[in-house]
Amino acid sequence: MSLPVPVPPEGVDPAWLPSAAFRAVGGRRTLIRGSDPLVETVHGEVAEACRRFGGRVVRAASDGPYDLVLGLGADGLGEEGFAVARSGGTTTVTASGGRGLLYGLFHVVRLGEAAFRGDWAPETHRPAHALRMLDHWDNVAVHPVMGQVERGYAGGSLFWEDGRARGELGRVRTYGRLLAACGVNAVCVNNVNVHAAEARLLTDRIGEVADLADALRPYGVRTHLSVSFAAPIVLGGLPTADPLDVSVRDWWAGATRRVYEAIPDFGGYVVKADSEGQPGPFAYGRSHADGANLLAAALEPHGGTVHWRAFVYDHRQDWRDRTTDRARAAYDHFVPLDGEFAANAVLQVKHGPMDFQVREPVSPLIGAMPSTRPAVEVQATQEYTGQQRHVCWLGPMWSEVLRFRPEQDLCVGELARGGLVAVSNAGDDPFWTGHPLAQANLYTFGRLAWRPDAEPRAVLDEWIALTFPDAPAPLADGLHAVLDGSWRTYEKYTAPLGVGWMVQPGHHYGPSVDGYEYSPWGTYHFADRDGVGVDRSAATGTGYAGQYAKPWSELYESRDTCPDELLLFFHHVPYGHVLKSGKTVIQHIYDTHFEGVQEVEEARRVWAGLADLVGQGRHARVAERYEEQLRSAREWRDQINSYFFRKSGVPDERGRRIY
Amino acid sequence: MSLPVPVPPEGVDPAWLPSAAFRAVGGRRTLIRGSDPLVETVHGEVAEACRRFGGRVVRAASDGPYDLVLGLGADGLGEEGFAVARSGGTTTVTASGGRGLLYGLFHVVRLGEAAFRGDWAPETHRPAHALRMLDHWDNVAVHPVMGQVERGYAGGSLFWEDGRARGELGRVRTYGRLLAACGVNAVCVNNVNVHAAEARLLTDRIGEVADLADALRPYGVRTHLSVSFAAPIVLGGLPTADPLDVSVRDWWAGATRRVYEAIPDFGGYVVKADSEGQPGPFAYGRSHADGANLLAAALEPHGGTVHWRAFVYDHRQDWRDRTTDRARAAYDHFVPLDGEFAANAVLQVKHGPMDFQVREPVSPLIGAMPSTRPAVEVQATQEYTGQQRHVCWLGPMWSEVLRFRPEQDLCVGELARGGLVAVSNAGDDPFWTGHPLAQANLYTFGRLAWRPDAEPRAVLDEWIALTFPDAPAPLADGLHAVLDGSWRTYEKYTAPLGVGWMVQPGHHYGPSVDGYEYSPWGTYHFADRDGVGVDRSAATGTGYAGQYAKPWSELYESRDTCPDELLLFFHHVPYGHVLKSGKTVIQHIYDTHFEGVQEVEEARRVWAGLADLVGQGRHARVAERYEEQLRSAREWRDQINSYFFRKSGVPDERGRRIY
Repeated sequence: MSLPVPVPPEGVDPAWLPSAAFRAVGGRRTLIRGSDPLVETVHGEVAEACRRFGGRVVRAASDGPYDLVLGLGADGLGEEGFAVARSGGTTTVTASGGRGLLYGLFHVVRLGEAAFRGDWAPETHRPAHALRMLDHWDNVAVHPVMGQVERGYAGGSLFWEDGRARGELGRVRTYGRLLAACGVNAVCVNNVNVHAAEARLLTDRIGEVADLADALRPYGVRTHLSVSFAAPIVLGGLPTADPLDVSVRDWWAGATRRVYEAIPDFGGYVVKADSEGQPGPFAYGRSHADGANLLAAALEPHGGTVHWRAFVYDHRQDWRDRTTDRARAAYDHFVPLDGEFAANAVLQVKHGPMDFQVREPVSPLIGAMPSTRPAVEVQATQEYTGQQRHVCWLGPMWSEVLRFRPEQDLCVGELARGGLVAVSNAGDDPFWTGHPLAQANLYTFGRLAWRPDAEPRAVLDEWIALTFPDAPAPLADGLHAVLDGSWRTYEKYTAPLGVGWMVQPGHHYGPSVDGYEYSPWGTYHFADRDGVGVDRSAATGTGYAGQYAKPWSELYESRDTCPDELLLFFHHVPYGHVLKSGKTVIQHIYDTHFEGVQEVEEARRVWAGLADLVGQGRHARVAERYEEQLRSAREWRDQINSYFFRKSGVPDERGRRIY
Repeated sequence: MSLPVPVPPEGVDPAWLPSAAFRAVGGRRTLIRGSDPLVETVHGEVAEACRRFGGRVVRAASDGPYDLVLGLGADGLGEEGFAVARSGGTTTVTASGGRGLLYGLFHVVRLGEAAFRGDWAPETHRPAHALRMLDHWDNVAVHPVMGQVERGYAGGSLFWEDGRARGELGRVRTYGRLLAACGVNAVCVNNVNVHAAEARLLTDRIGEVADLADALRPYGVRTHLSVSFAAPIVLGGLPTADPLDVSVRDWWAGATRRVYEAIPDFGGYVVKADSEGQPGPFAYGRSHADGANLLAAALEPHGGTVHWRAFVYDHRQDWRDRTTDRARAAYDHFVPLDGEFAANAVLQVKHGPMDFQVREPVSPLIGAMPSTRPAVEVQATQEYTGQQRHVCWLGPMWSEVLRFRPEQDLCVGELARGGLVAVSNAGDDPFWTGHPLAQANLYTFGRLAWRPDAEPRAVLDEWIALTFPDAPAPLADGLHAVLDGSWRTYEKYTAPLGVGWMVQPGHHYGPSVDGYEYSPWGTYHFADRDGVGVDRSAATGTGYAGQYAKPWSELYESRDTCPDELLLFFHHVPYGHVLKSGKTVIQHIYDTHFEGVQEVEEARRVWAGLADLVGQGRHARVAERYEEQLRSAREWRDQINSYFFRKSGVPDERGRRIY
């Protein structure tokens, strides 16, 4: 019984799965073998492709040979791995389980005609980690400040609308299909900030979550849920949420059992505790290991996992207090707890020590807890990187993070044994992601989560080939031209040299150099008339640099060896300090800000030249957003340059206009 | 038929009309003569006082002599004036109209026992201007950003709640009574920013306004309405709101006729047009005189007045553009229109050229349009002066404005022939004004509106004597100690030397030195490492100083003659510039900010000593707000000082802690 391919609603962009992407597969003779619900999904996909492109698909060998054989049977590939080979004119994909076979099919789709040429030796493909998750910061009820989707820039939520389940399960299935095609296998369906309506998803509203799980399951995507640590009180009526209290433990065990009755393959819980006002174990004098293990114990009998977020810091800091350093917080809180977390408790760590700035060092927590399973969290939704009004392809940033080696041996991509997680950038927007080119971020995340050492530019090639299967070479060149360097361009015209922040408080769009300077959020640049930056050295600063293992602790400790792009994150330096580039800090600020705007102007020009190659609706929307990006980039340039010129008094060497 | 005194809801503070304030009147024998609805109000007041304090009131002379005779009869005092005299043991109040008699009664109440001592020569009292209005920036529907009351710090609205009329007409009558006792005779019942729900008050919801008018009328308070200039389109379905279009004029005539059918003594319209996004005549290439005269013509047959606000400026300015000066805008827009406004059109001018900052020069528009009737608008609601969490008695500021003489002859108080207007600070709070001591602002406004040359400290004495009729001398001393200098204290710890702004954008509470520096709002300080302030001189700056008549234009033009407190409003000066006080600008900034906080600490100490004298509820609320004021004042001190220290590099002479 093949499962029909979901039909997206009228007007919704197919993203990287247009029909034409299936041309090579759809024109062949294919044999599918095996019995598993996901094999039916595979069958549905191939059948639909054959319907369009004239091929044929069968479930039992009879009139071979076949161009493509997809079948269960191989051992040792795990639930998600697959093997591919080609000989004698037949391409063979085998897997141990249905999900592996589905990923194998999408591998063949990506290869296109190349999948059916020549002979090749067998290859095996397995994801680096079992969990590749998108966290949706979607609220069920519209939050008075944060709206339907916190930090969402792609319309409303795919799952919720104004307090209710949205009910568009066809679109949810379509979403699951896109995720499967890039390798994502888990979705957390609600915001980590769990407000009143959302808390109830755990109990009396679990049926709405089950509906989502049913829609996502055929594409191998498991459902997770953000829960409130205070649930035993607010939902259970208990007087406490103390993780060591027996009634609390019983309550979680019972609630979790009922979750699994509704969703047998439920993935687990995501928890933001003792963070930015969310409740947590500190209220009871318990540790975060106590808190995580409480939920881990409830999930363990059912095979679930708790993702416990490490984003814990003092968000009511006094800006006058220079001894407290938010960057230190996660390490200081969690490293002493190494070894105390249950086997099915994952510590979910943001990739940097602050909060998804355009440039941060890699969190020193990753690799510092050998007996704990970390998941590494990145942010596909562009909260601090242009909010999907600016083009900012994050593949190179994520790749740098994943390739970083905290010590000599393993890189972050290998250390993330708890999985890779991205905050989703998708919503009910017709292009899924608001900015059509931001689809590339979602796709790239999935592929890097599957294979963290993938070359991001090659992933972008995949995305281009799938999204625009019939496009001529100039389009691919144009897309690379506007995407490849877009993250560095964004970095150039915003906060310089790793210092971060300098954004409008609250909504985080657009510049405000002092916006967070005298705030309680622990986010300062300390610019004065002589210099700028945060001294995080061990010798004279907050000691944060000392949280790294060697060689990083030594490299970051000295302003002479600290990489330019992180200089102001680690050091307070005079404006005349000479960078490795040979420029002074102040001239670097001026130059990069002028360059950044020029690069946006150039990208806009390139995009204008692609008008006939990408479809009118897509072209118009991107063109319109380039206008806003350019306006905003100029605003950044002029505010940053004026601020530092007024403060430093140092004129631009090239005499350009500063206000 | 005497009108009963309105009974405020349980728990609502009597403000300056506690029963005990009527002791002197209530213990006497009083004769009331005359026939007028407001004479019944007077009768009701005296009867209620007599019921409490054992006196007697009659309507026809029979068994004299009387201690007090209140009667209509005198000619030539106008609708609101009254004469008082005392001889032969009888105090006599006469008036030409019922409102005058009511004001005469409250005059006697203010005098207390002194009203019944000795003999005095006849005195006449008349208000300086016919209109003494409170503008309520109350929304009918809760606005998504501004809430129920825009810039309201006293709970909800007295008139509206969540889209509906609140319906507490007893409280509205009680409010009218308080207003009559300080001399206010007009209330505009909705926000000058007229949103969709509020627009309909003019037409199908006029009955709700009529209910308010009925409740306020017995205390001589007329009702006004803010209307949308686009009403003919949004309510009338016309294709245009062009003021010269006949169908538009007809529409307004008809709508206004129906308003007067519902409210025969309706006061008129208040209009904010072409300002901060509100619609106006500019859209049709018409002048503001055209716009105002359109509404004036509709109101004229019924005796109504249009209050046309002069708050017109470019709120989408480019911060890079130093040639545009928001301070110039009202003068530049309106002076060319002098002589073009209809007789019943009043130009309502904010007292300063910007927007109710703690220190501004007087608007040069006042006095510059000899053929136009200006009303002067002040802000009792403390948007920029501590939002009723800080004690900031504005009497001295308003008095300075009213005594200012734009030319040699008339002062602002005399020039305001269109009346005096305050944005109300009252709401449904049990203390009416959020901060109990902010009642003094409401009272002081009314009394200064009646008599602009009154000594504010004497008005404060009145307020204290009425509000605390049985209080011992130390309470009066304590209240003066915490109120008299509170405006200057607030000025000390906030933005220095007239430069203004430096507040958090949006809500305007708390410091943000650069909060409006790179904004489109025309509100800049241009601080750099060398100096600070806005050059508004004619010689080298925006020319704003030249909008004044002599001697002010000359005085403000030179930094040598410009008053210290306005120096940075008119000039950009180096931090080392020496003030008339002998201090440098930078040292002045440091000193005033340290002093301001010390003064708040001292006021808090004084207030603590009044615990037994003012009632527990009031004392506790004020004490609690002093904690917040002190916290906030310290935040202001430290942010302002740190900002200027980081920028100037000049250390505090006295070596105090700057961050």
